[in-house]
Amino acid sequence: MQAIRQIIINEDKLTALAVAAFRALGVNETQSKDTAQILVLADTMGLHTHGVSRVLSYGDRLKIGGINPAANITVDQVAPAIALVDGDNGLGPAIGIHALNVAMTMARQTGIAMVLCRGSNHFGPITPYAWLAAQQNFASLIASNATTTIAPTGGQLARLGNNPLGFGFPNPSGDPIILDMAMSVVARAKIRDAAKAGHDIPDSWATDATGRPTTDPTAALKGLLQPIGGYKGYGLSLCVDLMAGMLSGAAYLTHVKSWVDEPEIAQNLGHSMILIDSSCLMTTKALSEKMTDFQDILHNTPRIDPDVSVALPGEREIGRLRESRSSGIAMSKEVIEALIAMTRQQC
Amino acid sequence: MQAIRQIIINEDKLTALAVAAFRALGVNETQSKDTAQILVLADTMGLHTHGVSRVLSYGDRLKIGGINPAANITVDQVAPAIALVDGDNGLGPAIGIHALNVAMTMARQTGIAMVLCRGSNHFGPITPYAWLAAQQNFASLIASNATTTIAPTGGQLARLGNNPLGFGFPNPSGDPIILDMAMSVVARAKIRDAAKAGHDIPDSWATDATGRPTTDPTAALKGLLQPIGGYKGYGLSLCVDLMAGMLSGAAYLTHVKSWVDEPEIAQNLGHSMILIDSSCLMTTKALSEKMTDFQDILHNTPRIDPDVSVALPGEREIGRLRESRSSGIAMSKEVIEALIAMTRQQC
Repeated sequence: MQAIRQIIINEDKLTALAVAAFRALGVNETQSKDTAQILVLADTMGLHTHGVSRVLSYGDRLKIGGINPAANITVDQVAPAIALVDGDNGLGPAIGIHALNVAMTMARQTGIAMVLCRGSNHFGPITPYAWLAAQQNFASLIASNATTTIAPTGGQLARLGNNPLGFGFPNPSGDPIILDMAMSVVARAKIRDAAKAGHDIPDSWATDATGRPTTDPTAALKGLLQPIGGYKGYGLSLCVDLMAGMLSGAAYLTHVKSWVDEPEIAQNLGHSMILIDSSCLMTTKALSEKMTDFQDILHNTPRIDPDVSVALPGEREIGRLRESRSSGIAMSKEVIEALIAMTRQQC
Repeated sequence: MQAIRQIIINEDKLTALAVAAFRALGVNETQSKDTAQILVLADTMGLHTHGVSRVLSYGDRLKIGGINPAANITVDQVAPAIALVDGDNGLGPAIGIHALNVAMTMARQTGIAMVLCRGSNHFGPITPYAWLAAQQNFASLIASNATTTIAPTGGQLARLGNNPLGFGFPNPSGDPIILDMAMSVVARAKIRDAAKAGHDIPDSWATDATGRPTTDPTAALKGLLQPIGGYKGYGLSLCVDLMAGMLSGAAYLTHVKSWVDEPEIAQNLGHSMILIDSSCLMTTKALSEKMTDFQDILHNTPRIDPDVSVALPGEREIGRLRESRSSGIAMSKEVIEALIAMTRQQC
């Protein structure tokens, strides 16, 4: 087994490196910074699969025209509390940050506001957006559609993405609660692990190539991931696609292009961001007290295993963020080296 | 086995009967009508466990002061797109309809609007609200908290309700898509059925009294229901409680009283309704085309079993609604007789 070589780097340095890499790819200053902010936040939270390592895959698509490095992100406010953002096929996180800022500005006026994005790409994990919103005392409901990987209940072929859905709730005197979940029971990586180890998998994880549940990880790798709760997870994934894809004017279902199979084609992904200004609802003091009480009740639940605590959604990520900010971020040396190489390509 | 005696009754007659029963219990005309509207819609959709049979349990609580028959439902609009409703411990569906109308009125002005209710009770199923909203071309996101029946991941005791969450999307030239789901993998009734039949249950359905997953239905009946996707369903249930319970100013988690154990005490349930005016987003024609395309893509997915179609959320309920409106509603004769008896108690 080969050890993964790690390097400890601080947030500012990692951000500067990611910005330089995007600048070298022809992306403007603002969009480079916005994209770097989301990806670096992901790394500080330990979400490395959605962190700056993505600069490499985003970069591949920027070079071949699959993502537009010179995107003109436009905002059309269609109602006092709704705006439509056209991402012009730019970098997903740049479009996401743009939309988040528009949504917060509107919600400060109207209490709740929604921004729907079309013409977008992979926008990173949801947790960093919900975190940023919570820092300004906004509750949030954020979702995105994605390339199809999940079949509808009773169907054999993929028609829906493993569409992420997130909720954030601020605690002005403590940690926010942030849920960021995809719709599959497990990630595909867990099935690959079981196949390598020669273990069976529960029949709720995946289907074989004919659409039937299987306990054989090798058969499962030829099939599709199963959504949580069967038809319930199918329904949730579908509703995320209706909100983020259909209502936004983006692609939906099989209209979404695969960035793996057709990396040079615009995906036209859609996102939905609903922001709620908590200061309309109660005082900061009241919100702090309620959130702390809410967190305490759950933390103090009698445990099944005395050594395993009852955790809240987002708790692990926020703990890592705190650690990364005090001690630096542990990054794969390979990723850092690749980023440095990219910055040297600058003309 | 005893046959359930059924009676076919039309929607107007059933509504009149339910209204008369609530009037006999001292509820005013508007709140009787609003409550009857939701419960009868549930029956027309075949959701009989959440239909007018509830008049009996609501009635028991109205008589002992657990629900306030003379509730003064008040609305506090705290921002252009947010209102807080205090239900004054009235009938849940009366509060729900009141909130829905306020939310639709605001959303017509601002595009998206939210109403949070506190001081409420069981408000029926979500599907009828989403159906009413969709008739006026509103997309909706509706949720409620409930008596605790679900443990947090790693915890032994119930801390969260089996909190329902619903989404609705209008199709101006066809059927809306409506998802209405609770957070448990199955309803407790399915475990009771397995226990009666002497069958094992999947270990994802429920835990035993110590909080551990079990395949023994008898042990499961002493334990708790498991949420869909383990920690994901726990997270979703928690987020619904934060939105509908905590942010609304209602009770949350263990602060919610059990209507079974303490029927005479106010539950102080909370609901959240977010309404989106689809006419801000696109023309009726564009929405019809997109929704029909969305529905067609899913319906046309190659089937696993040629005899089992791929269905959309809400499709079965909407089909039954259509059938009930053309041929009448098949109701339990026992429920109808009990309702008639209640109307005769009028002073």
